[in-house]
Amino acid sequence: MRLVSFASPAGRRPAAVVGTPGDERLLDLADAIGVDDVESLLADDQALAAARSSVAAADVSRLPRLAEATLLAPVVPGKIVCLGYNYRGHVPDGVDPRASDPEFPDVFVKTPNTLGGPSDAVAVPHAAEDVDYEGEIAIVIGRRAKEVPVESALDHVAGYTILNDVSDRAWQRRQSQWALGKCFDGFAPLGPWVVTADEIADPHDLLVEVERDGVVTVSQSTATTIFSVPFIVSYLSQTMTLQPGDVISTGTPQKLPHALAAHRPLAPGDSVTVRVGGIGELTTRFVAPTQGVPA
Amino acid sequence: MRLVSFASPAGRRPAAVVGTPGDERLLDLADAIGVDDVESLLADDQALAAARSSVAAADVSRLPRLAEATLLAPVVPGKIVCLGYNYRGHVPDGVDPRASDPEFPDVFVKTPNTLGGPSDAVAVPHAAEDVDYEGEIAIVIGRRAKEVPVESALDHVAGYTILNDVSDRAWQRRQSQWALGKCFDGFAPLGPWVVTADEIADPHDLLVEVERDGVVTVSQSTATTIFSVPFIVSYLSQTMTLQPGDVISTGTPQKLPHALAAHRPLAPGDSVTVRVGGIGELTTRFVAPTQGVPA
Repeated sequence: MRLVSFASPAGRRPAAVVGTPGDERLLDLADAIGVDDVESLLADDQALAAARSSVAAADVSRLPRLAEATLLAPVVPGKIVCLGYNYRGHVPDGVDPRASDPEFPDVFVKTPNTLGGPSDAVAVPHAAEDVDYEGEIAIVIGRRAKEVPVESALDHVAGYTILNDVSDRAWQRRQSQWALGKCFDGFAPLGPWVVTADEIADPHDLLVEVERDGVVTVSQSTATTIFSVPFIVSYLSQTMTLQPGDVISTGTPQKLPHALAAHRPLAPGDSVTVRVGGIGELTTRFVAPTQGVPA
Repeated sequence: MRLVSFASPAGRRPAAVVGTPGDERLLDLADAIGVDDVESLLADDQALAAARSSVAAADVSRLPRLAEATLLAPVVPGKIVCLGYNYRGHVPDGVDPRASDPEFPDVFVKTPNTLGGPSDAVAVPHAAEDVDYEGEIAIVIGRRAKEVPVESALDHVAGYTILNDVSDRAWQRRQSQWALGKCFDGFAPLGPWVVTADEIADPHDLLVEVERDGVVTVSQSTATTIFSVPFIVSYLSQTMTLQPGDVISTGTPQKLPHALAAHRPLAPGDSVTVRVGGIGELTTRFVAPTQGVPA
């Protein structure tokens, strides 16, 4: 299933995307099976089974069109945890690709004010100096995970979505810790949906691509990641209890050489699309700063 | 006022501490003025005025005793943001104490699973290798702050409390980012109360002390901090919108030389008290690990 959250006059509601490519519709899961939100659905195997039955039985032609809905971030995560470096770069023939792998993931946190939905633009902040994108596949937690072994870690993964780890490089590098460069308002566009884990045959065999203003700037398979999804979930769960709806973004591949050479900060008017095979694509527009609210 | 949250059969409730030293009582502010929690109270000047009136008019002898209540973290912050280095060490005579000050604060984030209350023990995790304490004064945000100037930043500070930035040094140093060493469950004991800003004449003239197992290991005034409270609030608000109840922990002073020399990791059975002049003290016990919850 592809699960979304959409805006309604009554607030955020969960839905499944049904129908055919080009004519996708929304099955409201609050109406259909009485769940409150996607986070609680993801933690509940019985509710997921009921949702699948409702999807199978839906009279699609009577449902509202996806294209007319305002999508929100598919989940509201209690935590957004990110890996800083998880892809191998180009490795010359004859060199062990694992030779310079780090022993442990480098992990940081994005605060809740960073969360954005697939319909939201990112306001380039007044204080921004060098805004950049990072297109990433993100793990969405289903069942609570505390100190889980690698062998059963996938039991706690409900699905996958896309996160653009928007970062101001200048603020990120002002000090040793990257937090301020990562935590501007709206710097974590997420979505457009959670694809449930049963639909992803192998999360380590997906192509991650980024397109900026019509040019492909990143194109690399998750086969080149250093840390696997089960390892990441198990490792993090040794420290923090992972809760339903928590998001773990798995790091960005390097930019292609022409994109590295042509880097310029994102500015109002720019647009970035992150595309992940088997999941979909997330397009984010960048717009002028919003004003601070006076005291 | 000193504002607390306490556990009741109906859930978390806000209260003011009233009475005299040794006979302190709780005035339930949900009953008295109809506020839901300390976070919303802190953002509302009218409610704060009503709370002060209720405190002044309270029939103290009829109120329940503070000592019999179970205190929770005084606020549930949407964000816990921390400074990594904010105190000057010992400076020899004739040396400019500001000579080696960093230009910008080094900032990191503690995730929501770290929050603990003054009655909570910290379970030393199974994976822990080198658990340490950091006793800090923490700013509590009142009115929402987005891109506020230094000159009016204090208008957004509702009060102050104490945070013990519990950290596993081994995990903190595994990679460049400290997050995993900082984000174990329960690693942010907070409290016991928020002292409203009107009662703190100068937050840059408070003694911060830590006592471990009866020995004073830290004793330094906030006069030796590098970044002031208004600067910190203004600076952070250029990146992230600060919301009512958000907590900014202002960094730890260095340990005293004898404590540095005698460092050993915190273990079950240990106890740490953080004491801040004008605020109070927060004592945290360290206990054996809890078991992971099976899938």
